[in-house]
Amino acid sequence: MDITKLLVPRTICVVGASEKEGFGGDTCRNIVKYMDLSRVFFVNPKRDSVFGVPCYQTIDAVPESFDLVIICTPKSTVHDLLRQAHLKGARACVLYASGYSEVGTVECRRDEEELQHLCIKLDIALMGPNCAGFINFNDQVQAFAFISEERDRRGSVGLISQSGQLCASLMDSPNMKFSYAISSGNSSIITMEDYLEFLVNDNGTKVVALYLEGVKKPEQFAASLRKAAVKRKPIVVLKAGRSAKSRQIASSHTGSLAGSDEVYDALFRKFGVVRVSDMEELLATSLLFSVLPQLPDKSTVASINFSGGETGICADLGFIYGIDFPDFSDSTLNKLKEMLPFYATPNNPLDMTASLSNDTDGYAGVLRTVMDDENVGLIAIGYTLLLQIVDPCIHYMCAGIEKVVKERAASGCLKPMVMIPFIENTRNYEYMETLEQLGITILPSSDYAFRILKYLMDFVKYDYSQVDSTLSIPSKPPTQGTKALTEHQSKKLLAKYGIHTPPEKVCTSKEAAVDFASECGYPVVAKIDSSDILHKSDIGGVKVNLKTAQEVEKAFDAIMDNAKSHMPHAHIGGILVQKMADAGLEVIVGVNNDAQFGPVVLCGLGGVFVEIFQDTSLCLAPVSKAEALSMVNSLQSAKLLQGYRGKPKLDSDSLADIIVNIAKFASDHKDTLQELDINPLFVYKNGVCAVDALIINRADNNLKQGAD
Amino acid sequence: MDITKLLVPRTICVVGASEKEGFGGDTCRNIVKYMDLSRVFFVNPKRDSVFGVPCYQTIDAVPESFDLVIICTPKSTVHDLLRQAHLKGARACVLYASGYSEVGTVECRRDEEELQHLCIKLDIALMGPNCAGFINFNDQVQAFAFISEERDRRGSVGLISQSGQLCASLMDSPNMKFSYAISSGNSSIITMEDYLEFLVNDNGTKVVALYLEGVKKPEQFAASLRKAAVKRKPIVVLKAGRSAKSRQIASSHTGSLAGSDEVYDALFRKFGVVRVSDMEELLATSLLFSVLPQLPDKSTVASINFSGGETGICADLGFIYGIDFPDFSDSTLNKLKEMLPFYATPNNPLDMTASLSNDTDGYAGVLRTVMDDENVGLIAIGYTLLLQIVDPCIHYMCAGIEKVVKERAASGCLKPMVMIPFIENTRNYEYMETLEQLGITILPSSDYAFRILKYLMDFVKYDYSQVDSTLSIPSKPPTQGTKALTEHQSKKLLAKYGIHTPPEKVCTSKEAAVDFASECGYPVVAKIDSSDILHKSDIGGVKVNLKTAQEVEKAFDAIMDNAKSHMPHAHIGGILVQKMADAGLEVIVGVNNDAQFGPVVLCGLGGVFVEIFQDTSLCLAPVSKAEALSMVNSLQSAKLLQGYRGKPKLDSDSLADIIVNIAKFASDHKDTLQELDINPLFVYKNGVCAVDALIINRADNNLKQGAD
Repeated sequence: MDITKLLVPRTICVVGASEKEGFGGDTCRNIVKYMDLSRVFFVNPKRDSVFGVPCYQTIDAVPESFDLVIICTPKSTVHDLLRQAHLKGARACVLYASGYSEVGTVECRRDEEELQHLCIKLDIALMGPNCAGFINFNDQVQAFAFISEERDRRGSVGLISQSGQLCASLMDSPNMKFSYAISSGNSSIITMEDYLEFLVNDNGTKVVALYLEGVKKPEQFAASLRKAAVKRKPIVVLKAGRSAKSRQIASSHTGSLAGSDEVYDALFRKFGVVRVSDMEELLATSLLFSVLPQLPDKSTVASINFSGGETGICADLGFIYGIDFPDFSDSTLNKLKEMLPFYATPNNPLDMTASLSNDTDGYAGVLRTVMDDENVGLIAIGYTLLLQIVDPCIHYMCAGIEKVVKERAASGCLKPMVMIPFIENTRNYEYMETLEQLGITILPSSDYAFRILKYLMDFVKYDYSQVDSTLSIPSKPPTQGTKALTEHQSKKLLAKYGIHTPPEKVCTSKEAAVDFASECGYPVVAKIDSSDILHKSDIGGVKVNLKTAQEVEKAFDAIMDNAKSHMPHAHIGGILVQKMADAGLEVIVGVNNDAQFGPVVLCGLGGVFVEIFQDTSLCLAPVSKAEALSMVNSLQSAKLLQGYRGKPKLDSDSLADIIVNIAKFASDHKDTLQELDINPLFVYKNGVCAVDALIINRADNNLKQGAD
Repeated sequence: MDITKLLVPRTICVVGASEKEGFGGDTCRNIVKYMDLSRVFFVNPKRDSVFGVPCYQTIDAVPESFDLVIICTPKSTVHDLLRQAHLKGARACVLYASGYSEVGTVECRRDEEELQHLCIKLDIALMGPNCAGFINFNDQVQAFAFISEERDRRGSVGLISQSGQLCASLMDSPNMKFSYAISSGNSSIITMEDYLEFLVNDNGTKVVALYLEGVKKPEQFAASLRKAAVKRKPIVVLKAGRSAKSRQIASSHTGSLAGSDEVYDALFRKFGVVRVSDMEELLATSLLFSVLPQLPDKSTVASINFSGGETGICADLGFIYGIDFPDFSDSTLNKLKEMLPFYATPNNPLDMTASLSNDTDGYAGVLRTVMDDENVGLIAIGYTLLLQIVDPCIHYMCAGIEKVVKERAASGCLKPMVMIPFIENTRNYEYMETLEQLGITILPSSDYAFRILKYLMDFVKYDYSQVDSTLSIPSKPPTQGTKALTEHQSKKLLAKYGIHTPPEKVCTSKEAAVDFASECGYPVVAKIDSSDILHKSDIGGVKVNLKTAQEVEKAFDAIMDNAKSHMPHAHIGGILVQKMADAGLEVIVGVNNDAQFGPVVLCGLGGVFVEIFQDTSLCLAPVSKAEALSMVNSLQSAKLLQGYRGKPKLDSDSLADIIVNIAKFASDHKDTLQELDINPLFVYKNGVCAVDALIINRADNNLKQGAD
C-alpha cells in the first residue's frame, strides 16, 4: 500500500460533496478555499454543482481516474463506494464515518474488520475510519472535515493527532504553521506509526508534533524515533495518560493501548523525544523548533529585559525550571557597563533598564555584546508584544534586532533568539510575522516559556551516540501465568552476566550445611530454598549472622520446621547457606518486561528512598554505560554514593556495570523474562555484591532457563 | 498624614502639564481621556492650554485649592513646588522623579531624606519618588505616568506594584479590571504597607494583587494580611526572590529588603495569601477571585469537555497540580448516561462528546446535572474561545450556560464556574464580556489554568480559625554577635516548656559521674559540658552506650583529655552524664529568628531526609496545634510516623505538642533568641524525648537566660 497516494495525491474525488454544515460541506469549503480545483472532482447524486464547482452524479461519471477518494457519506455506503473508486484508479481513501471499533460492540468491531479486508483486497491506503482527515500544506491538499479561520498556515510542523477533535483545535492557534496535519482515527489500515515514519522522512517537515494516546506497532514506532534522533529532527509529543483517570479516558476514547506512562517516559528519554504537557506546549514547542534558524550550540540562556521586575521573574522561573543562566564574562560586563545607564547593574538575567526601550542602536549594541559572550547559547528577549501597539518601543527594538540579525547572518555568527512575553495576549500579527522572518518565535507567557526553553535545552543536550538505541521489543505477547526461580537458580543465571554474589550452596543436610559454612567462613546466612516460597522471611525461612556450627544446625532445623508448618505443599530443595556479605549501601536493581517495549531496568536506593520518596530511575534495555551512569546520577539519593558526610565515595562505576549487565540479561531473555529483582545489591567502596535475587519467568518458557 | 487625600482626592493639580511624550504628556493624556476635567488644574509656565484644557502659569495662579499635586517636573524643582502646593491646600503629592535613594549614592540618599523631612513638615502624603503614580478606577482619578490602550478597566482588583514598569505592563492584559493600580516607588512617606492596608479596607476592592520585592514594616504588613484573612478578602502576591539571582536583582532594583524566601512562604501560608509565580498568574488569579460570584463551598472540581483528548489533558493536569476531581454520584452518572450519546462513558473529568457542541438544551442539561452533584464544588468548562468565532458552538454553549445561571441564581443554588481554554489566543471580547456577566472567568491556557484552580482551592481550604496569627515580630533588630548556651543550660530552659529530656547531670568528678550513672541507670552517655564547644563529637567529646562504672570513668578521662588537647582555652563546666534514651524515630525541630517576622520553627525527619531530600516544613511562631499537625503531616516522610511497614504508629500528637511548645518558647524570647535546635528528638509509640538541644542567643541579651 502506498501512503503517498494518500498524503500526496495528484487528484482527489469527494463523495458526498455539499454546501451544508457537516463533513461534506466543510471538506468542500476547505477545498474551494485553498486548492487548485483542476485536481478535484465532486460527486453528489442530488446536485449539479457545489460552490460553483460541477458535481457528478456518481463516481463512475467522473471523467478521469483519481488517486484519493474522500468519503463524506455514512458508514452504510462505504463498501460500494470503495469498489467504485477502486475502478477509477483510487488507491487511497479518507473515511470520516464513525460507528466502527471505537463503539466497542462485537458488530461494530466486525464491521471494521470487513472494511480492513476490503481495503487490503483493493490495495487502498485508508485513513480512518472515525477520523477528521488531513491537510497537506506542502502541496495544498485539503481532505479535512472541519473548518478553521481562513489563514495561510503553510510551514514546517508535521502534526499527527490520535484525536480528530484535537487535530481541528490545534489549527486554531493564531501563529501555527504546518507541513501536514493528520488525524489518524481508528488507524484500520494506515496507522499513526506509518504517518510518523512518513513525516520523519519528509523534507518539508522540520519537526513532528504528535498527540499520542497509544502505540500499536512498537517496533515501527521506535524505528521512527530512532531515525529522527539520528537526523536530529525533533519529535514533540503530548502523550495522554500521566494519571489513571486519563489512561481510562484514552482507552475508552480510541481503544488505544495506553501503556505504562513511565515506560513512555523512558522511551522518549532514550530517543531525545520532547514530552510536553498540554496543547499550548505542543504547539509552541513545535513552532519554536520549526522557526529557529539553528539549534543553540550550548544549552545556556542569556535573558535581557527592560525592567527589574521582569528580570526578577525570569531569574525565578529559570531557577524553578532548571535553566542555566551563565555569568557574563568580564569583557561582556565591561562593555555592558559602558552601554547602560550608571544605575544599571549588568548581570544575567539582565535588566537593561527602560532607558533602552526607545534606542535602536543601544538595543543592537546590547544584543551584539550578549551574543558575543562565549558562555551564551541562546538569547531570551523579554517583551510583551500586544495586539494593539500603544508603546512605540517595539519599533525601536525590532529595528535593533533586525540590524544585528542581518549583520550576523552575513558573518555566520548569529545566535538563536526567542521572545518571552509576560502576559497572555494575542500577539500583534504584523510584528509576529516580522520577528518570525528574523528567526524569532514569540513563546507563550513566561511560565510556559521557561518550560519550553527547558525542553529545547534538553534537546540540545541529548546525545544519540551515548544511548543504546536498539531496544529489546519482545517477539511475542506475554503469557498468562508466571513461574519464579529460586534465589539460587536466579543467581546462577545472573553470575553468567558478571553479577557478583556471595559464595553459597544448597545443602540438603545439617552436615552439608555446617561443612559449607566452615568452607566459606563464618558468619553465614541460611535461607529456605524453594521456588514456591517467594517471601522467605515472612514464614521464618531466613536466619542471618550465624557464627558457629551449632547455630547453623539450629537454624537448619528451625527453617525446615517453619517451612513445613507454613507451606506444607511447597517443594523444598534444601537450605541455601551463604557467606554473609559485609554491609554496603543498599541498592535495588529491577527489571519489568513491558509488553510493548520490552525490559525496563529500574535502579534506586533501598528502603525508604524507593518506598517513600519514589527516588528511582528507569531505562529501557539494552542500557549503555553512559545511560547507566546517568540513571545512577539522576537519583536524588546519588549523594549517598558520592562520599556523603565524610564517608568514602562508593563504586558508582561498578553499579553502572551491573545495570548494563542486568539489561543485557533481560534483553537476551526478552521473550521469557517477566520480572527480575536484585534486592539488596550492596555497593562498596570497591565493587558491589548481589545479596538476594529473584527471577520470575513467563510460565510456558521457564523450563529452558530453570534447568540451567 | 491622610492617605485618602492622596488616593481619593476631590481635586488635583498637574505641574508640568504637557502634550509631549513623557511623564507630563502621558499623565495629561490619561486625565483628558478618563477624568471629569472640572476636578483638574494644569500648570505649565510655557503653555496656555494642554489638550484644550486651560493651563496656569504657576501653582499660585490656580484659582482654587486642591488636594493632590502631581509633579511631572525634574527633581530640582520639587521642594519649591511642594511648598507652593501646600499653600494651595494640597496634602498629597505624586512624585515621578527619580534620582533619589534608588541610585545608591550618599548624596541621593540625603536628597530623599530631605524630601521626607519636608513632606512630614508640610503634612503631605507622598507617593514615590521614583514611581509611576496611580489610578483610582472607582472614582476615576488618573495620576499615572504611562499610557495604555484605551479601554474601560473599572473593576474590583486592587493592584500594588513595587515596580513602576511592571505596574504599567499589568494594565496591558486585555481582560483585567481594577479598582486601584498603585506604583509604590521608593515609598519615602506612604509605603506599600499603607496602600495594602487601604485596599484591604476598601469596599470597592474585592481582591488585592501585589507585586512584592520586600517589606519594610513587617508589623503593619502582617496586620493587613490578618485583617484580609479574617474578612476572607484574597491577597494574591507575586513575590520576587525565589532564586538567589532574583533576590540580587530585587535588592539592586529598589533597595527593598529581600528577606528569606521560605519565611515569606511561611508567612503567606499562615494568612492564606495566594503566592503566584508570574504576571500572568497574578492577573488571572486576581481576576478569577474578582469575577467569581461566590467561593466554591468545597474544594473539588468537575471538568466538562467536548472531546476525549481535552478531557485527558484535564485529567493529567489536574493530577499533576493536585486538583480533586471527585467521582460523580450514581444518580449523576445515570442522568448523564441518559443525556449523552450511547458511546459516551460518563466520568469526572467528563467527555460530553462533540455531539453536545450545538445543543443548547443538552448542554444546559449536563451543566444542571453536574451542578446538582453534591460532591462538586466548582465546574471547569473546557473550551478554547477564539478571537474570531468560526465554529458556532460557543453560541449554543453560552445560551445553555446563561439558561442555567439565570434559573440557579434565582433559586440560590448556583455553583461557581470557570472556562479553561487549551491554547493561547486573545479571547473573543464580546463573549468574554458575556461570560463575565454570568460570573465566568476565562483562565489562561490549561497548564496555567490548573495551577490557578489549585490556588483557588487552597484558598477555599484555608481556615483562619486553625492558625495562631499573632506572630512574634521582634521589637528590636538582631545584634551582631551570638552566644551559645551549653546543652544542659539549653535543656533546662526548654524543660520549663514541657520538653521532655533524659535525666542528666553535669559532673565535675569521676565519682560524681559514676554516682549519677548508677542513680539514673545504665547505659549512659557522657558529653563534654562547654558552651565554647558546639560540635562535641568532632573533638571526641561524646561517648555513648556506657554500661559500667569502669566505662564511665574511662570515658570521663578520655573526654576531658580530648577537650583539653583540642580546645585548650574552652571553659569546661564538667562532664554531662545522661541516661541513654531508647532509640526512636529521629526528628529535628529547629528555630531560626527572622529579623523581620520573628521565630520560624522547622520540623523534619533526621539524617538523609532533611539533608538529601530537603523534606522539612516551616511555620512562623507562635504555632497552633493544628498548624503543628499540618507541619508534621505535610512531610513526605510523615509515612514513617504513620505505622510504616507494619511498625507501630508513632506519637505524632506529642511531636506536634513539642512544636507548639518550642514555638511558644521562641515567641517568649523573640528579642533574645537567635537559633534553637533539638537534634535529635526521638519519637516513640508514646511520647517523645529531646536527646540533644542547643540554644544560641543574641550576644548582649544572653545573660538573662543563661543565668536561669
